[in-house]
Amino acid sequence: MSARITGVTTHDIRFPTSRMLDGSDAMNPTPDYSAAYVVLHVDDGPDGHGMTFTIGRGNEICCAAIEAVAALLVGRETEGLFADMGAAWRVVTGDSQLRWTGPEKGVIHLAAAAVMNALWDMYGKAAGKPVWRLIAEMDPAEQVALVDWRYLADALPPEEARERLQDKAGGKAARIAEMEATGYPAYTTSAGWLGYSDDKIRSLMQAAIADGWTHFKMKVGANIDDDVRRARLIRGEIGPDRYLMMDANQVWGVETAIANMGRLAEFDPWWIEEPTSPDDILGHARIAREIAPIKVATGEHCHNAVMFKQLMQADAIRFAQVDSCRLAGPNEILAVMLMAEKFGIPVCPHAGGVGLCELIQHMSFVDYISVSGSLENRVLEFVDHLHEHFLDPVRTRDGRYLPPQRPGFSVEMKPGSIAEHLYPGGAVWA
Amino acid sequence: MSARITGVTTHDIRFPTSRMLDGSDAMNPTPDYSAAYVVLHVDDGPDGHGMTFTIGRGNEICCAAIEAVAALLVGRETEGLFADMGAAWRVVTGDSQLRWTGPEKGVIHLAAAAVMNALWDMYGKAAGKPVWRLIAEMDPAEQVALVDWRYLADALPPEEARERLQDKAGGKAARIAEMEATGYPAYTTSAGWLGYSDDKIRSLMQAAIADGWTHFKMKVGANIDDDVRRARLIRGEIGPDRYLMMDANQVWGVETAIANMGRLAEFDPWWIEEPTSPDDILGHARIAREIAPIKVATGEHCHNAVMFKQLMQADAIRFAQVDSCRLAGPNEILAVMLMAEKFGIPVCPHAGGVGLCELIQHMSFVDYISVSGSLENRVLEFVDHLHEHFLDPVRTRDGRYLPPQRPGFSVEMKPGSIAEHLYPGGAVWA
Repeated sequence: MSARITGVTTHDIRFPTSRMLDGSDAMNPTPDYSAAYVVLHVDDGPDGHGMTFTIGRGNEICCAAIEAVAALLVGRETEGLFADMGAAWRVVTGDSQLRWTGPEKGVIHLAAAAVMNALWDMYGKAAGKPVWRLIAEMDPAEQVALVDWRYLADALPPEEARERLQDKAGGKAARIAEMEATGYPAYTTSAGWLGYSDDKIRSLMQAAIADGWTHFKMKVGANIDDDVRRARLIRGEIGPDRYLMMDANQVWGVETAIANMGRLAEFDPWWIEEPTSPDDILGHARIAREIAPIKVATGEHCHNAVMFKQLMQADAIRFAQVDSCRLAGPNEILAVMLMAEKFGIPVCPHAGGVGLCELIQHMSFVDYISVSGSLENRVLEFVDHLHEHFLDPVRTRDGRYLPPQRPGFSVEMKPGSIAEHLYPGGAVWA
Repeated sequence: MSARITGVTTHDIRFPTSRMLDGSDAMNPTPDYSAAYVVLHVDDGPDGHGMTFTIGRGNEICCAAIEAVAALLVGRETEGLFADMGAAWRVVTGDSQLRWTGPEKGVIHLAAAAVMNALWDMYGKAAGKPVWRLIAEMDPAEQVALVDWRYLADALPPEEARERLQDKAGGKAARIAEMEATGYPAYTTSAGWLGYSDDKIRSLMQAAIADGWTHFKMKVGANIDDDVRRARLIRGEIGPDRYLMMDANQVWGVETAIANMGRLAEFDPWWIEEPTSPDDILGHARIAREIAPIKVATGEHCHNAVMFKQLMQADAIRFAQVDSCRLAGPNEILAVMLMAEKFGIPVCPHAGGVGLCELIQHMSFVDYISVSGSLENRVLEFVDHLHEHFLDPVRTRDGRYLPPQRPGFSVEMKPGSIAEHLYPGGAVWA
């Protein structure tokens, strides 16, 4: 092994999902699900494929940022990178000039996510393992070394993290076998988009129930009277015993969120997701206090582990919705999972879009097998869109994700899908 | 007036400041002060010039983001924009697809800053007034309408903001006259860079004292023993009665910050700036409690008004260091100033770099004249670098900023300076 990273290629890939209002919500009425896609080339061995996710315009900015970030890896030997992926994370996120444009947030951090996802894909392929297995099988000290502890150690000292992982290490083999047999529980957002008609929602809910789903998410936040009407419709379809989650996608201020959840409480929501600005830790904490027992969830726009740390310290959330393309790859997601285990917060990742399900499933397997050891109150989002474009698409059975078996991070897209959806030159944009 | 915005030009401008270690600190050892510079073109009347600030690599990403953000204004009539600059702010920050890459943070928000700065420059030039006067002379209702209150109203309802502004309105004319006569108090960071030798620091401190400066800032965070030695040197030079500020530029974790400030307390620092991650509101609050009476300052990387709101709600800072290129222009800076006035927090803006002094001075005049009405514990950063490249450079006298007189936002750069510092094609980079 003396392979070296020789270069990088980026692709601006966009799917015209806004034409069908797939994915529509109160903040994002017309998303075009997009991937700022990166290939890290090596002179010997498998290339690494990665991406970050956007909803259209701005995807080209992320591609430009990926070029700048990936340049930090070009010329390096893969053996050294794989041997210390914690150090690799600091290379990718630590260039002082690029860091100024974050730090650890926004476009430059989305780019770091894409590059780290590609590097982990390469590592998994080189090691012949899916990424979930690669990380889950590491010993606790190796896992702890993946994390940058500088801003996190006040909440969870690394030595304590190692001890907590050690406590769970004995059950890993059994949990791997369990996951391979039955999979990780999921929930569906495919039916509740804001742009769908009542009839479409009703028929999609009925189909989802027939498929075995037990947790359902609806979008709220456009108009409270409409929200109440749709909540009544959906609760009527799913009955009193299935779980109903609501997602406001950040459109409310703190006091509006409290008032509106007062009206929606009669439909027994399990959680309200993104009730206000994703940056408003103290606002989430106040909402959580005032709308209990409805629980607060957030995370798809929670831009780094420092923010998650505080959401937990402030008792502001009861669910941590990590995102594979918002946080900078498995290293930072693992950091959040370790803190969540200490704070007793279930990690229920955000997925959907394009590629998000393929990536994040690996980390939910890591979480169950080696970090939390629990499935209680844990569900992983599933949206049944766009999986056909991946070489190793997600597999679900009876409302559960099944663990990927192919080496890598499951994010490599079919060459034909890439070519067809290139923006602006691909066939679908012609 | 039926002028229309017809297009946008961006320039990637970089100054090779890292060659002299100007601006060096513990997190940013080799910054190349840079401007992602934008010109908004109109078909009739003055163009608008604006910029955001970076420290080198990544400036090209900001230019790409500016192109995407500025496109939201192209084709619009300036009359309508100027008549409702609050609505203009929502146009520039509110495109749902671009917003995904923030929201309101990182590269896309730096780009929004550049575009809003350019639009305000154009408005000032069209109105024949410097921007500080344009905003300071607005009535309270107009000022309140500049702000997007969605995520801020729980801390400061807009009607209360208007009332508080009204309480100060009577003294505005007198404060304008006072500022024109004596200026706004400043402090200097020109002497305390981490990369400078002890001899260079000593001679720069002596020169600054001779020039009338009373507040001095030193960089800390590289090595605590070196920090102690340099603090002793500087305190020895400035004597016991002048103010010494320290700036750790985010390199410490929460517990390291507390421990290190315990050692530096003997040199009587007035504030410690950026003791840890700029995202760590609760960490700043804990540091503030444990190191009192040393005060905590932060803000140059505080990415939006929602974060400043929480820093104030959590009693985490005693100084708010707003930045003209991190926050999205005068609208968002005014929002922070209004909250700071309510919470009793002095606004002591971040400046330096290139262009930051030119821009932010306008907002400190707005703050004093129409918002806070106070100079107590208030100083505006001054760094004596790179002003010669601007058509309307800052003017200081006896350690105070004097108000700009030329119409606009003082950010227009000399054409020769732009051409010479274009990256990578300009003469200085050849």
